[in-house]
Parts: sequence; C-alpha cells; structure tokens
Amino acid sequence: MAISVNTITSTREKLEAARRAAPRVSALTTIEKNRILLALAESIESHASAITAANQKDLDSASLPSAMRDRLLLNSSRIAAMAAGVREVVALPDPIGEIISEFRRPNGLQIRKVRVPLGVVGIIYESRPNVTVDTVALTIKTGNAIVLRGGKEAMHSNQCLVEILSSVDGLPSGAIQLLDSSSRDSVQELIQARGQVDVIIPRGGAGLINFVVENSTVPVIETGAGNCHIFIDESADFDMADRIVINAKTQRPSVCNAAEKLLIHEKIAGVYLPRVGPKLIAQGVELRGDEAAVTIFPETRAATEEDWSQEYLRLCMAIRVVSSLDQAIEHINRYSTKNSEAIVTANEAHARRFLRAVDSAAVYWNASTRFTDGGEFGFGAEMGISTQKLHCRGPFALAELTSSKYEIIGSGQVRT
Amino acid sequence: MAISVNTITSTREKLEAARRAAPRVSALTTIEKNRILLALAESIESHASAITAANQKDLDSASLPSAMRDRLLLNSSRIAAMAAGVREVVALPDPIGEIISEFRRPNGLQIRKVRVPLGVVGIIYESRPNVTVDTVALTIKTGNAIVLRGGKEAMHSNQCLVEILSSVDGLPSGAIQLLDSSSRDSVQELIQARGQVDVIIPRGGAGLINFVVENSTVPVIETGAGNCHIFIDESADFDMADRIVINAKTQRPSVCNAAEKLLIHEKIAGVYLPRVGPKLIAQGVELRGDEAAVTIFPETRAATEEDWSQEYLRLCMAIRVVSSLDQAIEHINRYSTKNSEAIVTANEAHARRFLRAVDSAAVYWNASTRFTDGGEFGFGAEMGISTQKLHCRGPFALAELTSSKYEIIGSGQVRT
Repeated sequence: MAISVNTITSTREKLEAARRAAPRVSALTTIEKNRILLALAESIESHASAITAANQKDLDSASLPSAMRDRLLLNSSRIAAMAAGVREVVALPDPIGEIISEFRRPNGLQIRKVRVPLGVVGIIYESRPNVTVDTVALTIKTGNAIVLRGGKEAMHSNQCLVEILSSVDGLPSGAIQLLDSSSRDSVQELIQARGQVDVIIPRGGAGLINFVVENSTVPVIETGAGNCHIFIDESADFDMADRIVINAKTQRPSVCNAAEKLLIHEKIAGVYLPRVGPKLIAQGVELRGDEAAVTIFPETRAATEEDWSQEYLRLCMAIRVVSSLDQAIEHINRYSTKNSEAIVTANEAHARRFLRAVDSAAVYWNASTRFTDGGEFGFGAEMGISTQKLHCRGPFALAELTSSKYEIIGSGQVRT
Repeated sequence: MAISVNTITSTREKLEAARRAAPRVSALTTIEKNRILLALAESIESHASAITAANQKDLDSASLPSAMRDRLLLNSSRIAAMAAGVREVVALPDPIGEIISEFRRPNGLQIRKVRVPLGVVGIIYESRPNVTVDTVALTIKTGNAIVLRGGKEAMHSNQCLVEILSSVDGLPSGAIQLLDSSSRDSVQELIQARGQVDVIIPRGGAGLINFVVENSTVPVIETGAGNCHIFIDESADFDMADRIVINAKTQRPSVCNAAEKLLIHEKIAGVYLPRVGPKLIAQGVELRGDEAAVTIFPETRAATEEDWSQEYLRLCMAIRVVSSLDQAIEHINRYSTKNSEAIVTANEAHARRFLRAVDSAAVYWNASTRFTDGGEFGFGAEMGISTQKLHCRGPFALAELTSSKYEIIGSGQVRT
C-alpha cells in the first residue's frame, strides 16, 4: 500500500478539510466503519518498521528524561498492542443511530431523539503516540472526523501513524488531520474554530488543560486532573485501609486517579497513622501533614496550604487529621479536583453520606481510587476522564463522542 | 412575610454565597423542593402589588419601543401565569437521584451512575422578567443554586422577584443570587468564575450569546439562534407546503424557531413560488431571493450573500431555488444555525435522507419548525433550545440541568 503524502499545510485548510469530511464519515454504516478499523489495525501491523523508524527519529531528536522517553517509545509489542486496541473498538457496539427516546404528541407528531456523531472532534495531547491510534479508532467508530494536535516530541511518530491511518481504503479523505506540533499557534487556531470543530478534548497536564479551558471558544471536555482523597473513618478495617491506601498511592503514582491526600478520623489517627505511615515510607512515599499528623507521626513533614490543592503525580502524600465525617467531606469538596475520592468505613450510614455529599466524578466506598478508568469500568475503551459536569463525567468512551438530534415526522401540522 | 434585604453587593461575594448554598440545595428531598416551589408560587401571588409597583418603575425609567415594553410588562394575569408556571414544575418528576445505569464488575465492584445536580447554574438573560421566575423554579427543582444576571431594563422587577423568591421558608440562604445589571462587569465575572459556577446559560440575542461563548471559561449551553429553513421538494403537497411555510414564517416571527429561508426544488419553483409568494406578501412578509426566484416571482428583491446566514426575526424571508435534495441539504448545513429545519415532501426516501443528513437540533418532515419548544415536545417546561452538540441539543428542561456521578461500592478491592 502506498502511503499518501499530506500536502495541506495550514491549520485553517486542515480544519476545513475535516469539516468537509465530517458528513461523509457520519454517513458510514457500522459495517463500513468496522471494515475501516480492521484495515487500520492491519495497516499498523504491516507498517511496523516504518513506525519504529519514525519513532527512532523522535527518540533521537531530544534529550528526554527517561520516564518521558519510555512514554514516547514504540517497540514491536507496543505496535501490536495499538493494533489490538483498534480491533477491540471494532467489537464494541456502534452507538450511532440509537433511538434514545421516541414519543407521539397529541397532535400526531412523532418525535424521535436519535444518537448522531458530534461532527469534528479536536484532540490536544502530549507525548504518548498510542493516543493517536486510540483516539482515531474511537472517533471513526462514532462517525466523527478528527483533528489531532500531538506533542512536538512525538512529531515524527504521529506524522507516520496519521499517514498510515489516512491511507486506509474506505476512509473519507480528510477525515483525519494532524496539526503542526512545532508551535502553539495551531492549538490556538484549533480551540478558536467555533462552528468548525464541535468539541475539544485536551489530554495532558494541568498546564495544557487550563490553557485550553481559558482560551477555547469551542466546547471542551475537561479531563485529567486528579487531586484524589482517601478518608479513613473511625470504623475502618485497618487491614483494608492499608491495602487501599498503599494501592491508591503507589501502584501508579503518575496517573490522575492515584491518591494524593489521606484524611484520617481523629479518633483513630493516634493508632492508624503510626501503622500506615511506615508502610508508605517503606514504599518510598514522602509524607507531609497537618500539625496533628506531624505530632502523631514525626516522620511527616509539615504541609503548607498549597499542599492541599496540589496534584503530586509522584510518591508523595499529604495527611490531615479530621474531627468528623463532615469535616472530611468539606475538606474534599474544597480542595479536590472532583475526580476520584474514597471512604474506608464499616459504617454504612457514613458511607452513604460520603457517596452522596462528595462532589466528584467517582466516589468509592471501600475500594481504591485507581479503578476510575474506562477499561476497569467495563467500557471496553476510554477517551479520557471528565472532571467537568457538563456532557459527561468520569471515564468516557464511545457514547460520549456523540450528540443527539430530534427527528419529527408530521402530516402537515402547524402551530396554533 | 417580611422580605429580606440583600446586603451582599459584590459579584464575588454573591458567587461565593451561591457556591456555599449549592450543597444545601442539593441535599433537599423532592418533598422539600416541591414545598419550596409551592411557597414560591403563593408568595408571587400574595406580593402581586409589590411586583407591579416594581415593574412600573422599570416601565417608567426608560423610553422603550412598544415591543420591548410589552416584553417587560407584568400585569396581574402575567403574575398569575408565573405562579401557575411554578406549580407546573412541582408536578414534574424530580430527575435527581435517578439511577442512570448500574452494573457489577467481575472483581465484585458495584458501580452506579446516579443523576446529581450541576451545582451552581448561571443564567444571563434580557428583558422578560418571567424568565427570573421560570429559571428559579427549574433550577431549584433540580437541586441547584442559581445566579441570575438579568437585563438592566428589568432591574426593579427582577430585584423585587428575587427578594420574594429568596424569602421563602425552607430555601437554603444564598441559593438565589441576582447580579448587578448596570454594567457588563458582572457578566464578565460570572462567565470567568470557573470552578465556582458549573454552567452558564445565555438566553437572548446573538450578540449576548456570542459574547458569552467567546469569553466564558465556565462551560456554556449555547441557546437561541435560529436561521431556520423549509425545503419544498418536488413531490410536496402544495396545500400542506403553504400551511407550513405561512405558519413557520408568520405565526410568531420574532422567535428562534420561526422560518427565515425557503428553498424550493427547481422542478416546481415555476409553479409553487408564484402560488406561495402572494400569500406571504398578503401576510406582510418581505421577500428576498436568488436570481431564479426573482425571475420567477419579480416581487422578490435580490438577496445578498449575507441574507443566507441572517436571522431576520421579523416578517422577511429569503427564497432560493435549488436543483436537488442534495443541494438543499448542502445549503442548510452551510448556512443554518443548526436549530430547526423542515422538508415538505411526499417522497419518503427523500424525507429520510433529509432527516439524517441535515445537521440541526430538530429536523422536520411535513411539519412547521415552530414546534421546537419544550412545551410542544411535552417536557412540561423549557430552559432554552440548545444549538450546540455537547451536553444537550434542542429544547431542554429539567434533566439537562443535572450531571451524573459514579458511586462505587467495594469490599476492599485494589487494582493490580
């Protein structure tokens, strides 16, 4: 298969091309979309050497810290995983065309609310080039055109992947656009393309997300930030609490659903903190805390006011001793980024109150915050974790890449 | 009942007060919310003379065109209608607490997606003071706090209404805030209050809506614009077409679901345009049109390119002769504001294609565009008509003033 060369260069032209492609992508049947996705998966596999070569250019071109290098790396097993991911999307049900509701009015009008594509989806993301493939698969499955703006460090990898993906038979031309990653101008143009782009999904650090939210005139699905809390209530089972705290903090500290804060009820803090503290330190966790925490467990360094709103994304945890369930809820609703929070308690009334009153996307009773994930929730895929309240909240995937439309069938009705 | 005097003056303080009130409004039961709404309705009725007196101040203070004066006027029948509207909201089901979905994962986690309030809803609107009462009823019913920013011309009416509404027994203090309407600063502060306000709903003209969309960092539900089209296909029943065109254009030309553009298939234009044209003119409609339309029916004035995207909101209609269904769809998708469009045809295949391919919130086959309305759709209420694709599309009411949350119950599960 020949890989086509993208000759369009300006952001404006690319956005127009995506807009023109959108109705053609929208008109594809489920069978046609799945055929395209299977061809995508195959094409990724058959172009593995081109992908690794492009990826090598990215790896060579910058002196990156090893964690970032690892995020950027595409080896043969990761390429196989990308293709497998696309095939998993084939197996998911197509939400487009679903009749969300249907009713008949007394005047005889038949009204149907039908699920339709959004149109053009804009994704702004950093480093990991597998996001390119994942998001293309999800947006094509939902009948959308897609405009990608990846990170500069993954430029060659993304360019190669998009050329491979765009060349697949049956895909309407222009359906996948990759914007210039060398300056912020393309981001600015994308997020201001109101009327041409239907949604912007920023995936990355707080800086990127804030920039997009502050400057976008296109509706945004805010994702990713996670200053997550665990509250150990006075009736908590300490073994369970240990397992959950250690897991939520240390299993993968760099992700948004990792716990950053530990709140402990004052009635048990004197016993529980000296018990969990050394376990956290043994896992390499730096501890910070309020005055009470420092007094009880002096290996804890005094936290500042800033600590309470910070998302560490590393092996650091701040501990606060609270006087009641209410104080825990109040603290969380004040400082959290509304992603994931957990209570560990044997008291069902406390748990129910916590589940109801904590204003976050995912609220847990006796489980680790690390489960906030499309795969773990059984969605078969994930586009991101929404921390806003409009359109969708929490892990989201196919259905959230759609809109709806009312189709009304009459027989000449007019309004009186 | 004594009417409390609002002593808070700055926008910042008012937003903070609404934020503090939000969890208390959210915690109200359905019975408590309905009791508050019934008290609101009664209080409006028992303070009718105070309301008309305040309204008189607004009517006196500006020399308004008569149409605007009429929109502003509150007489005893309109006050009764406002109270009746609140009682209708009492009768509607409470969406809060609804379990949207519920499932159990193989690891034993029980996951529930539950409908919850948005938190703080910001409304920016113009002239009609009944919007104050309508929106307060809908937001309280859905467990939200509300920040209102009405028009300057309705300042005294809105102030009086908000004082009456805020003084009702059982309503958490601070739940209803009215911002200063004398300058745009309060709008600016409201739409930049990211994290404090969960959604902004602008209700008004294109200028207001554009200003909000361009400048808001809070998620917006865009409402209202309506450059609506009717396409008369070659197989249309002319009697039905006449009824629909006349109704959609003339029944209430100042609203967003009124038709602004008439597309006619070229095969019937020579017969149909000379038939419908005089009927429209007899209703006082000014006609504009493309070259073909002007040639066929010379009472039509030549339209400019601008006409095709314009929302007249008055007795004016632009006519274009199109060569095919596809050209009609293409024209609509290019120029419409994605509100409401209709096809009049006896050809079911054409109708199905139009319903699917036209990218608007409400698409009609053989009915007037004027039905795009929460009441006409049977929702029992309406907050607005969304012309964006995110969160909700078309007429929206109670359910769209909510968000969702995942509640996850475990027994100590951690992620491996």
